[in-house]
Amino acid sequence: MTGRIILILGGARSGKSRHAEALVEQSPGPLAYVATAQAFDAEMTTRIDIHRARRDVRWQTHDCPFDVAALLADLPSAQPVLVDCLTLWLTNHMLADHDLAREEAALLAALRPRAADLVLVANEVGFGIVPDNALARRFRDCAGRLNQAVAARADRVILVVAGLPLTVKDVA
Amino acid sequence: MTGRIILILGGARSGKSRHAEALVEQSPGPLAYVATAQAFDAEMTTRIDIHRARRDVRWQTHDCPFDVAALLADLPSAQPVLVDCLTLWLTNHMLADHDLAREEAALLAALRPRAADLVLVANEVGFGIVPDNALARRFRDCAGRLNQAVAARADRVILVVAGLPLTVKDVA
Amino acid sequence: MTGRIILILGGARSGKSRHAEALVEQSPGPLAYVATAQAFDAEMTTRIDIHRARRDVRWQTHDCPFDVAALLADLPSAQPVLVDCLTLWLTNHMLADHDLAREEAALLAALRPRAADLVLVANEVGFGIVPDNALARRFRDCAGRLNQAVAARADRVILVVAGLPLTVKDVA
Repeated sequence: MTGRIILILGGARSGKSRHAEALVEQSPGPLAYVATAQAFDAEMTTRIDIHRARRDVRWQTHDCPFDVAALLADLPSAQPVLVDCLTLWLTNHMLADHDLAREEAALLAALRPRAADLVLVANEVGFGIVPDNALARRFRDCAGRLNQAVAARADRVILVVAGLPLTVKDVA
Repeated sequence: MTGRIILILGGARSGKSRHAEALVEQSPGPLAYVATAQAFDAEMTTRIDIHRARRDVRWQTHDCPFDVAALLADLPSAQPVLVDCLTLWLTNHMLADHDLAREEAALLAALRPRAADLVLVANEVGFGIVPDNALARRFRDCAGRLNQAVAARADRVILVVAGLPLTVKDVA
Repeated sequence: MTGRIILILGGARSGKSRHAEALVEQSPGPLAYVATAQAFDAEMTTRIDIHRARRDVRWQTHDCPFDVAALLADLPSAQPVLVDCLTLWLTNHMLADHDLAREEAALLAALRPRAADLVLVANEVGFGIVPDNALARRFRDCAGRLNQAVAARADRVILVVAGLPLTVKDVA
């Protein structure tokens, strides 16, 4: 059996992480949670703790702010994986001034079919007005391009609105 | 007969209010318009006046910036109700430094099935980049969570895009 | 045969231009590309060049930052047309302090059925939090209203999310 690659898109506080977790929790056995968040401040630490406390005991958390591609290669192919989220992963690489083209190429190459589902969460950030500062515009461009590239490789793409799924792509 | 609870989501100038009004106007008899807007300045006063001038004569307007739960309990169950909008209601409570958890619990408890339709309008505000200031981030979080909670209780959820409805949930 | 009027909406870096181009390229013969972008700075020049390099040789580019209505009247009715994009066109008129009501009325009057398809691209900009400054709020209002007016006249409206089309309206 081949797992699916599923991209869950959503805005801030849209319920996208919860939707993604519920999707992966439909699978039996241990589940891999790839957490890309880095706790820089108290606000972020609180968010991470809330997310962690909510998840069921089958989750094994892997803190992975940077090399998600290598981690995906290491995890057993039959274990369902949730990557939450690609947008923070992109932020981490931008703040660290890494070569984004290289990192994205490595990530996309790692999005190969696995025996179990691979679910990736990302923020949709392009629906506001043009940001004032150039860094925010660059981030918005990079995040949008990354979402497009991952969506092109995904079997399913779901946009979460107020906790509810809108299916945007479904290769049945 | 039982009325439906319908949540109309949309961005700024998406036509969400107009869509919600048209929906409620399909019902016969007098209609209750629960207006949460407070006219703090000329810009807001103009907006309120434009909305009001557009509505048909069957609407009875109730200005209600804070206690929507109590008003819903007072209105006749057989009268169709439009609440426009939850996001301004949330803003009012935040600016007044009220206990948001308590206010939200009261509102959600008031979203019980009525004899006629109850239509609620809210802004979708989470699809842009992360705001610079902490208050805007907190507002975005609260608005997103409120939308999720109301959507979970709604029979129908519609996202309005350029004046057009996208059905996100429909418990037929 | 009558062409369709198709509105392609999307956020920043959503793939909306690429989707619109692919749609028009399904038609045979020469294609008209109505480019509303003005290259004020290096960032914009780069964007325009990238878009131009990507397009196939059948495209004839018409730089038209302001009078799209007149250009549409001049182009052969049997030639497929892509206008990319309405949001920049609106920006151009706002920055030039033109009479927006007059310009919009002229544009909308020009959206008549043609022998070939007329595809228009626009940004969806209303899904973020309320902008701090009044000009950004005014722009957001104008862009939202313009999108509604064009969508009302369109045979098809598509929202592009991560490069993927969500059909919002389809008058078959």
